[in-house]
Amino acid sequence: MVIPQEIRELIESGPLAHVTTLNSDGSPQVSVVWVGVDGNEFITAHLGEWQKVKNLRKDPRVALSLLGRGKNAMGLQEYLVVYGKARITEGGAVEVLQRLARVYLGPKVEFPPEALRSKPGFITHIAPERYAGIGPWQPGSASSS
Amino acid sequence: MVIPQEIRELIESGPLAHVTTLNSDGSPQVSVVWVGVDGNEFITAHLGEWQKVKNLRKDPRVALSLLGRGKNAMGLQEYLVVYGKARITEGGAVEVLQRLARVYLGPKVEFPPEALRSKPGFITHIAPERYAGIGPWQPGSASSS
Repeated sequence: MVIPQEIRELIESGPLAHVTTLNSDGSPQVSVVWVGVDGNEFITAHLGEWQKVKNLRKDPRVALSLLGRGKNAMGLQEYLVVYGKARITEGGAVEVLQRLARVYLGPKVEFPPEALRSKPGFITHIAPERYAGIGPWQPGSASSS
Repeated sequence: MVIPQEIRELIESGPLAHVTTLNSDGSPQVSVVWVGVDGNEFITAHLGEWQKVKNLRKDPRVALSLLGRGKNAMGLQEYLVVYGKARITEGGAVEVLQRLARVYLGPKVEFPPEALRSKPGFITHIAPERYAGIGPWQPGSASSS
């Protein structure tokens, strides 16, 4: 599924993303991450094999949600929900985190700190299947692009 | 479970909350809502019987996540995740939405619009069971209160 231009632009503006995975008992697990776009996938990176990584290895269903910049006619804040399937790859987390740190922390920021730069880490690649929320990506809305 | 003072203050500052429920196939469903505190529960209100309301009637497991105002030592934004169980009551949604609109939209805003004020709607009451995220509510962190 293609990632529409308005969603690419939103992601490039650096909104923190709430990522929901499923624990083995089926309950939701939520954390807040930096997110980028890589082709037609969303990517997040992790220096450790955190719970969300373990969860996605068992059940790839994932939701990303983040606030948009505009408001709708009723004054409600725009937001985007991405539903998709995730796959995990090992290695390369430092490079992705460094790229995202420039968006989320500042154009000159070095991240992660030196002591953590030897970690291979994990990358989550999310293939989108459906968009929801309030904004031009809402099903039935006219696209802004 | 008691809601700590720093969490009450955060909620009173009006952060939009990402609410995750579980669809009948076990997949996550996410939307963004206004949230308030009512005693030792979090509350959200809905004019219609939206998917999240239907989901919570079948499976009360819910997560709320929202951004905090500070940053941690590594420069990462604080955020709060509330894991809990929800119960739904009918009626009273307009009063809750009006109270929350004053926090989220502005002190003089009338919400919902007149045409929707006769709807009884639904209130979701969330009893917290566990807090996570980055901030003073993190397990193991010293409380700021």
